[in-house]
Amino acid sequence: MSPVKSQEEMSSILKDHVAKTTFKPAAKLVASQLNPHALNAKYAVRGRIPTKAEELRTKLASESHSLPFNKIINANIGNPQQLDQKPITFYRQILSILQYPTILENPFIDKIFPADIIERSKFLLKNIGSVGAYSHSQGIPYVRKSVAEFITKRDGYKADPNDVFLTTGASTAVSYLLGLLSLGPNTGFLIPIPQYPLYTATLALNNSTALPYYLQEEDDWSIDSTKLRQIIIDSKAKGVEPRCLVVINPGNPTGAILKPEGIADLLGVAAEFGLVVIADEVYQENIFKGEFVSVKKVLRQLQELDTTGLYKDVQLASLHSTSKGVSGECGQRGGYMELVGFDQSVRDQVIKIASISLCPVVTGQALVELMINPPRPEEESFTLYNEETSSIHNALEARAAKLYNTFNEMEGVTCQEPEGAMYCFPNLSLSKKVIAAAEKEGMEADEFYCNALLENTGICAVPGSGFGQAEGTWHVRTTFLAPGTEWIDQWKAFHAKFMDQYRD
Amino acid sequence: MSPVKSQEEMSSILKDHVAKTTFKPAAKLVASQLNPHALNAKYAVRGRIPTKAEELRTKLASESHSLPFNKIINANIGNPQQLDQKPITFYRQILSILQYPTILENPFIDKIFPADIIERSKFLLKNIGSVGAYSHSQGIPYVRKSVAEFITKRDGYKADPNDVFLTTGASTAVSYLLGLLSLGPNTGFLIPIPQYPLYTATLALNNSTALPYYLQEEDDWSIDSTKLRQIIIDSKAKGVEPRCLVVINPGNPTGAILKPEGIADLLGVAAEFGLVVIADEVYQENIFKGEFVSVKKVLRQLQELDTTGLYKDVQLASLHSTSKGVSGECGQRGGYMELVGFDQSVRDQVIKIASISLCPVVTGQALVELMINPPRPEEESFTLYNEETSSIHNALEARAAKLYNTFNEMEGVTCQEPEGAMYCFPNLSLSKKVIAAAEKEGMEADEFYCNALLENTGICAVPGSGFGQAEGTWHVRTTFLAPGTEWIDQWKAFHAKFMDQYRD
Repeated sequence: MSPVKSQEEMSSILKDHVAKTTFKPAAKLVASQLNPHALNAKYAVRGRIPTKAEELRTKLASESHSLPFNKIINANIGNPQQLDQKPITFYRQILSILQYPTILENPFIDKIFPADIIERSKFLLKNIGSVGAYSHSQGIPYVRKSVAEFITKRDGYKADPNDVFLTTGASTAVSYLLGLLSLGPNTGFLIPIPQYPLYTATLALNNSTALPYYLQEEDDWSIDSTKLRQIIIDSKAKGVEPRCLVVINPGNPTGAILKPEGIADLLGVAAEFGLVVIADEVYQENIFKGEFVSVKKVLRQLQELDTTGLYKDVQLASLHSTSKGVSGECGQRGGYMELVGFDQSVRDQVIKIASISLCPVVTGQALVELMINPPRPEEESFTLYNEETSSIHNALEARAAKLYNTFNEMEGVTCQEPEGAMYCFPNLSLSKKVIAAAEKEGMEADEFYCNALLENTGICAVPGSGFGQAEGTWHVRTTFLAPGTEWIDQWKAFHAKFMDQYRD
Repeated sequence: MSPVKSQEEMSSILKDHVAKTTFKPAAKLVASQLNPHALNAKYAVRGRIPTKAEELRTKLASESHSLPFNKIINANIGNPQQLDQKPITFYRQILSILQYPTILENPFIDKIFPADIIERSKFLLKNIGSVGAYSHSQGIPYVRKSVAEFITKRDGYKADPNDVFLTTGASTAVSYLLGLLSLGPNTGFLIPIPQYPLYTATLALNNSTALPYYLQEEDDWSIDSTKLRQIIIDSKAKGVEPRCLVVINPGNPTGAILKPEGIADLLGVAAEFGLVVIADEVYQENIFKGEFVSVKKVLRQLQELDTTGLYKDVQLASLHSTSKGVSGECGQRGGYMELVGFDQSVRDQVIKIASISLCPVVTGQALVELMINPPRPEEESFTLYNEETSSIHNALEARAAKLYNTFNEMEGVTCQEPEGAMYCFPNLSLSKKVIAAAEKEGMEADEFYCNALLENTGICAVPGSGFGQAEGTWHVRTTFLAPGTEWIDQWKAFHAKFMDQYRD
């Protein structure tokens, strides 16, 4: 390497340069000059209330704070490991070895890892290679084959590894699909309301039109396919061509699970109008009541039962992730989508778009493999895996029940029983006084409520207005991940005071 | 959990449903109906030649193949660990512990990891938390602080942790910035030619206009700022407003390093026309000849030397990554950008866009931390780290020299001496016969050459036409990562035959 120039040498070179330079400098950019579609995108999960919670957390760290609580309860985001949920040992032991395969040569290795972990790691290293190498943009062939086997087993219908695309979390899949399907404001996307705001944010970025369809809160947040059909017809009449139907099942933020008949209705609508169905099924392992049936399974059954080919050409993208379930490995960014019924020319475009960002993170791909292939009952790691996953599942279930019961005890609050996912989405009857007070602060009434909840208890939950809700209704989304249950009682006490304070 | 419905029960529910369903199904989508901007995006690094190489690799695996070679040499992509480069032990030991912190409680731990690795891991676990939790969308505060210290030390000018944004590889940073700055076809982005095709692909996705500026091959691929200014003036006259100037330094695919005076010229142009400078500096640690000086350092020096405020408002985004350097940890998707001189309102939008995909992969963020804070000379891991990194660096340097010398011995080939990055970009004089033969196959002449090279030797290199090149010139980009040097001799032998075969 050549000798490096000193600061002084550099200065003297540039001094001459500056001496002979003359121009009028331009002003810097401000946000209003940026891409208006990007400016329009809103993302409530990390919006105003969570931002304020972060500020309060900083305040709490200073000793002289005068806040009426001692910690922030993050009930705003499904981030289990931030909230002390321990990772599943099986996943982490194998990821640890994949990061440092040399450890397998250590003479003490069998004092560190169970035999099945060592064996499985060796096998995966052979089939995955170094986690530091770019993989195929569609994902590691071996993992895609595994995912196909997992889906085959889950649904009882054969899945094809070529249909599987590994992604960096599920949000990347949404970004690819919505980006490819968007042709501007005349392209419509049917989005459930309430919805996870990733969808409206991504549509805003793509300057396409969200066609909201309201979930029937009173009927367990079900979908009314007659209304859905009407929205499509009305939209076409206005020149906005619906292209895609987004379904979130189990629901975020609703916590509800769709029934097979309901899914069949949706697939009929999709078949009739040539809509791409995006089935966001990232909570498929968070089931507390009832049964999860995948959209793919219902589609295959309809294709089998209907001999006239009505459902033959339905295009379905179903998404899954390592961030949810009992794994809760959000920071590892693993996920996949299965594309069924798409034309090869469309799939080629998906691969091309994926290739621009090279490949999904390889450790995340490995984690997908582990999530769908946990230890087998005869393996040494099975007992611990089983204990850990059951205990996480049971704690979630217990907290969900406690939240549900508590909300239904509160004045003016109704809450659907949570069936799946990680959320309750209680409905709040708020007084005119609250609405007026909120308006004065430039807030929606439910945002005002969440703000008061945060300021008084340290509990951070997100207002329903961030997810969308029927006109004149107010909701709050809370996860049931935060450890302990005292915070739920604190919420109840706050609520009683709040209702008294703002009684009309 | 409720009992799960059997396949038969499901069928009987859906049978009734199907019986009463009637509609005319719509046809499925084909690619031509997708977002035309996405269709326009091209990405040569994973394009036609690499795709063919994969097909040939599959053929090689069958025993009865009749190919004139026994393996594919991937010289198309900077993916060192795919090509047998061993990962740096220091990185992987710590990542291994971060994945499985419980290992620290093992009584044999000090028989497995050096003391400094254990200590550093404990420290990082305290400051990073679980790698399975979502981090702040801008990145882990501790790592951002470290990055700021690294930049401060590198440049001799203070950097601010609030200016640092951790990203999933450098391509995510490019996607955010180009997305925010794009206002449609009337927004212009100055892109070097030849360039890494990520830039033109991302601009195509955003429907914005690439304003190519040609690097001066004969002058070590330098930038002519007079011509740059002219391109801006011409573009404005045509109604396309230049917003951004992309600089790749060290160059990809050129392998050249910019001089401080050249950078100062560019910053003058940026200041005069209010252009955001994107400095893609991911190869800053791959230096073989000369010296890398960051754009940020030159900017700070100009700001210091010029007392009239000419450079005060320059907006600079500089990118770095864990995929290159000697780490070559491509699959781990670590990276960062530093935003200097941007208005707060613009930075807020960057954070919002980042928050839509929640957070960069956390292990990638940890790897950034390790890359910029390698073991200190007094630490146990230092010797091995030093050996490993020197040996990788020396092997790259030796192979770069061998490639450079060999190209310059070949008939009709000239090649600039590689100074940095991982690439040679030799210039090929191809005969009229080659051009005619290529045209017959629907290829550019250099693509035809690369195709013949692949078919005859198994060497996969990418044609210059995928990166852009001056009209009437032909190039090939080859990495110098593939192990061994025999393949370089094979290339030489192929070249001689090819030239003979297509002599005019």
